[in-house]
Amino acid sequence: MRDIGEHRPQDPRYRERVRDEFSRQKAMAYIGASLAIVEPGFVEIHLPYRDDLTQQHEVVHGGVVSMIVDSACGFAALSLFPADASVLTTEYKINLLAPAREGKVIARAWVVKSGRTLTICSGQAYIASGAGEQLIAVALETVMQLRGRPEPPQQPAA
Amino acid sequence: MRDIGEHRPQDPRYRERVRDEFSRQKAMAYIGASLAIVEPGFVEIHLPYRDDLTQQHEVVHGGVVSMIVDSACGFAALSLFPADASVLTTEYKINLLAPAREGKVIARAWVVKSGRTLTICSGQAYIASGAGEQLIAVALETVMQLRGRPEPPQQPAA
Amino acid sequence: MRDIGEHRPQDPRYRERVRDEFSRQKAMAYIGASLAIVEPGFVEIHLPYRDDLTQQHEVVHGGVVSMIVDSACGFAALSLFPADASVLTTEYKINLLAPAREGKVIARAWVVKSGRTLTICSGQAYIASGAGEQLIAVALETVMQLRGRPEPPQQPAA
Amino acid sequence: MRDIGEHRPQDPRYRERVRDEFSRQKAMAYIGASLAIVEPGFVEIHLPYRDDLTQQHEVVHGGVVSMIVDSACGFAALSLFPADASVLTTEYKINLLAPAREGKVIARAWVVKSGRTLTICSGQAYIASGAGEQLIAVALETVMQLRGRPEPPQQPAA
Repeated sequence: MRDIGEHRPQDPRYRERVRDEFSRQKAMAYIGASLAIVEPGFVEIHLPYRDDLTQQHEVVHGGVVSMIVDSACGFAALSLFPADASVLTTEYKINLLAPAREGKVIARAWVVKSGRTLTICSGQAYIASGAGEQLIAVALETVMQLRGRPEPPQQPAA
Repeated sequence: MRDIGEHRPQDPRYRERVRDEFSRQKAMAYIGASLAIVEPGFVEIHLPYRDDLTQQHEVVHGGVVSMIVDSACGFAALSLFPADASVLTTEYKINLLAPAREGKVIARAWVVKSGRTLTICSGQAYIASGAGEQLIAVALETVMQLRGRPEPPQQPAA
Repeated sequence: MRDIGEHRPQDPRYRERVRDEFSRQKAMAYIGASLAIVEPGFVEIHLPYRDDLTQQHEVVHGGVVSMIVDSACGFAALSLFPADASVLTTEYKINLLAPAREGKVIARAWVVKSGRTLTICSGQAYIASGAGEQLIAVALETVMQLRGRPEPPQQPAA
Repeated sequence: MRDIGEHRPQDPRYRERVRDEFSRQKAMAYIGASLAIVEPGFVEIHLPYRDDLTQQHEVVHGGVVSMIVDSACGFAALSLFPADASVLTTEYKINLLAPAREGKVIARAWVVKSGRTLTICSGQAYIASGAGEQLIAVALETVMQLRGRPEPPQQPAA
């Protein structure tokens, strides 16, 4: 399902741009998520299991899984946008298939269709532990391209 | 849309049970969410704006909004379950309508249909600030009832 | 949930326009659906139970229920569009709650948020029989506004 | 994405059973859909373009595309059920990506996860014409397994 190579980025600096954007999502830092892979139309985000992200059954909260799947979809879309466009999630649907009890949650997203206004992405989440990877969620997301509104440059640390 | 009174709880201690469950969702505490209202088939969760929950445009991350809408739906369903049943989100869909830039995010959820196995909930999120409330998200969620698996009692703090 | 009066149509001929559009949806005629109500941001479609629209359990096929809910959402959105804009469904999600075994299926849709590009609609379906109305489906739909592409005028019958 | 071979049918007569069920869906016959392929956890349905299934822009109504994607998902799930279980769609989400203006609509669905109660399916629709196949829709669907309720045998024609 990861059709890397099919998509051609319009912005040759797409990878740097996605990394900049990701680093400015404070919510990703707050939950401990990191950007692992950026390819044209594909993004992978990692999130180590953390006790403070769990729900009452001691598994990672489904909303946290959704957060990284949503972010992965948005950045997969952004990787194909022109340099002067920014990204906005308009909606998504997610099916939670299995709990994440330990290990690392991996969210993967790739662009299914890239249009001028809307981009449709498919997302998946896995739990990776000693036993290998297990699929824990599948999602479909619609992302909007906002033209002429480049993402703001990252603030200098000082 | 908040049809309170329509639903009859099977467990007279439904309110205490929902509050217990909520207090055991560490992810809710981690993001600073609190349980504001519990009625039969209805739950409201509050989340004050926090800088560390934002995405790159300095608005609350859509995934965070989803987290509290998802939790509100799950607890609205749980409020109608028998005492020996626990709750599991199977899927949801959310449309993000407007950004949450300041103030308090309010998630409201109510049960649309309560079945033996599946409960369907409708969720909404608002941003409440000096200017009143603005609708920022709408959702539909499917919740599963797991019978004979009461939620584990809260661990004593010592 | 039917907030009629909240929305102001941009095209004073919105009702006639929706009716024209509906009459050109051959699929609606083919399944026997009719347009019952058009208000600003609200549409109701009726579909009498028909044996040839059923699935294997002798209830109306869920896809048929979806068809009229989808159409109702699209037309509810169209009722608020300017005169030179046409409508396109981009996505929807539907929960099927109960079967439609006899009587009349009623689809109702209203605009939740009307934006320049995207309009979000909430849809419901009921089965109406001697016993009153029963909710059988709930939906959320995203509709796109295509500017500068007025719907083509209806072809004269000869 | 079509992981045929991964799934093992519990009912050795799964193929015959799916074909029986399909033939009893009058709605499928009414729109002219046919069952093309049945594999364990995978189903393909074909629908030739028909003028009477169109919406106002002379493309196949999105609800009709949804109907065959929904049916394909349900039957893909059914192919893995035990012999005494029947199938019920509980919800789905579909993104419509491109119009179907001519040729044949092909719906494909495969099981993503098969549980005791719920089965999650992924669906796609393509338009096949002289120019090859083009993806026109993607979907996620939740199907419920009803135990101890075998699908009723097909009525003899006389």
